Amino acid sequence: MDFNKYIETLRQQIEAEIQALFVNRNPPGLYLPMTYLLDSGGKRIRPLLVALSCGAVGGDVQKSLPVAAALELFHTFTLIHDDIMDHDETRRGKPTVHNQWNESTAILAGDGLLILAYQSLLSTHHPEILNLTREITEGLMVLHEGQALDKEFENRDDVTIREYREMIEKKTAKLVEVACIAGGIIGDGSKQEIRSLRQFAKALGTAFQIQDDMLDVFSETSITGKPIGSDIIEKKKTYLTIHFLNHAGEKEKIRFLDYWGKTAVRTNGIEQVRKLFRDTGTFSAAQKEIEMLMSDAMHNLNSLKSNEATDGLKKMSLKIKNRVS
Amino acid sequence: MDFNKYIETLRQQIEAEIQALFVNRNPPGLYLPMTYLLDSGGKRIRPLLVALSCGAVGGDVQKSLPVAAALELFHTFTLIHDDIMDHDETRRGKPTVHNQWNESTAILAGDGLLILAYQSLLSTHHPEILNLTREITEGLMVLHEGQALDKEFENRDDVTIREYREMIEKKTAKLVEVACIAGGIIGDGSKQEIRSLRQFAKALGTAFQIQDDMLDVFSETSITGKPIGSDIIEKKKTYLTIHFLNHAGEKEKIRFLDYWGKTAVRTNGIEQVRKLFRDTGTFSAAQKEIEMLMSDAMHNLNSLKSNEATDGLKKMSLKIKNRVS
Repeated sequence: MDFNKYIETLRQQIEAEIQALFVNRNPPGLYLPMTYLLDSGGKRIRPLLVALSCGAVGGDVQKSLPVAAALELFHTFTLIHDDIMDHDETRRGKPTVHNQWNESTAILAGDGLLILAYQSLLSTHHPEILNLTREITEGLMVLHEGQALDKEFENRDDVTIREYREMIEKKTAKLVEVACIAGGIIGDGSKQEIRSLRQFAKALGTAFQIQDDMLDVFSETSITGKPIGSDIIEKKKTYLTIHFLNHAGEKEKIRFLDYWGKTAVRTNGIEQVRKLFRDTGTFSAAQKEIEMLMSDAMHNLNSLKSNEATDGLKKMSLKIKNRVS
Repeated sequence: MDFNKYIETLRQQIEAEIQALFVNRNPPGLYLPMTYLLDSGGKRIRPLLVALSCGAVGGDVQKSLPVAAALELFHTFTLIHDDIMDHDETRRGKPTVHNQWNESTAILAGDGLLILAYQSLLSTHHPEILNLTREITEGLMVLHEGQALDKEFENRDDVTIREYREMIEKKTAKLVEVACIAGGIIGDGSKQEIRSLRQFAKALGTAFQIQDDMLDVFSETSITGKPIGSDIIEKKKTYLTIHFLNHAGEKEKIRFLDYWGKTAVRTNGIEQVRKLFRDTGTFSAAQKEIEMLMSDAMHNLNSLKSNEATDGLKKMSLKIKNRVS
């Protein structure tokens, strides 16, 4: 089957699995805000990783669908609560949940998705489901610590690239890792296969976050569906901002401070900031880092079964690397 | 052993179990707000119910402690997020988490407690732990629907006592029910014993909520540690407000509207509202309802083992019935 068709079929099965979780649920005042962001066209990267990882160890992809759906719900829970905390007004080209309704509704919607994710996960029948639930719960706690670190870093000026890497391994890469090993476990993969999936996911997830940091500055709202330059306004410690602050000269830093923590970056500063990031080598350092991580990720796929799903993991990784939103 | 000593010993074991969950956790920016409300002297009703229910079916109470701790964390998670949503400034005589830090911190702290609760729950080794985790997750979803209904009712004027009962069975009684059957399951109770525990808990939980509604109007801040009359200000549909609105005459209703949804109830209106609730029979109707529910609860304890733990459940229920905060 052609790659796009294969992925599209998987995606539809994941969609059906997610939708089924919401049949006959009441009250609508709770469940409508829960489905609102879910239904707004996410790329379903995490559930696809679950299903493909399951296939890549030779497992039956169908059996991984409830876990795949759970991973998307866990992810959406973090987005909804993150948007409240970051005061973000739009996501995927639509108002955020707290903007469309209010903060209370968004808090409840996020909590509800977290609980519903556990329901989906626990509906799986597999001898390893208890251990997998333990591993996923541990992963969520790590993710959570990463989010707290991310907030903490906003108030610190001395964050190193090393600390940043630790933070994004927790905040972003951990859930990607959990998704891949979940697929491997449900697919009854060998210890060696699951180890390879874990290494693959760690590298991919880290590359994904650095890419995300890049898009915040170098993409366009019309493409990403969310305002540009939010990281600069929120003084987020990203790969770019940390590298820049560590490598720029005094003059460049002073020019950068006109936009650091200020909404001016959105109105007329973005081109200036892009130029500063290019001139100090920050842009190319980030690109190089992504290249290295992606080659590490790819390398780890070699020890998996040679089939459509492993091929899918490769092609999806390339898509992620070249994504624009 | 004397009852108070017995309960005190149990409570200390529960405390130790809760504290152990926080050893070696980082960053403090996440874990400090998570322990803040936990450490502010809650009554530990839910974990005590877990432990006592375990003992009441003849089980080893020690084995129920991780589940007991989980139930307290689930409960604390709901309190922290509820306080944000209700804009409450104090709880247990201290600033609420979002008031002490900020909303972002409180959202993260609540989320973290929910995940940590799962960690504690899943650390239990028992052949039924997977099914129990499913049942608890189902219970959390129901609780969540109850919270959403509670918020929805604030904007409705035609809520009936029957709808209210459905709502509090979800919002309050469900977690009490889950606590008791969790203890019964970990204690390897019979189906009949678990059924009795479920009925006991349902009645107790409902009585507890009506009692809670009473305390909001008829207790004092100096005793409860939280501002009086919050339900009136938030236009909450409680047993009292629904009964009053359904039974008061026009004149009394008009007098009530001076305080309904207004902070004036806190400054000089509380005595007026108390008098109105007494004169229309609302106060005595609530008292009678609590009596009936408690006698139902007690009745269900008869089919359990006759031992210290069952005795503990009886005495704890009486304490809850007569509580002032």
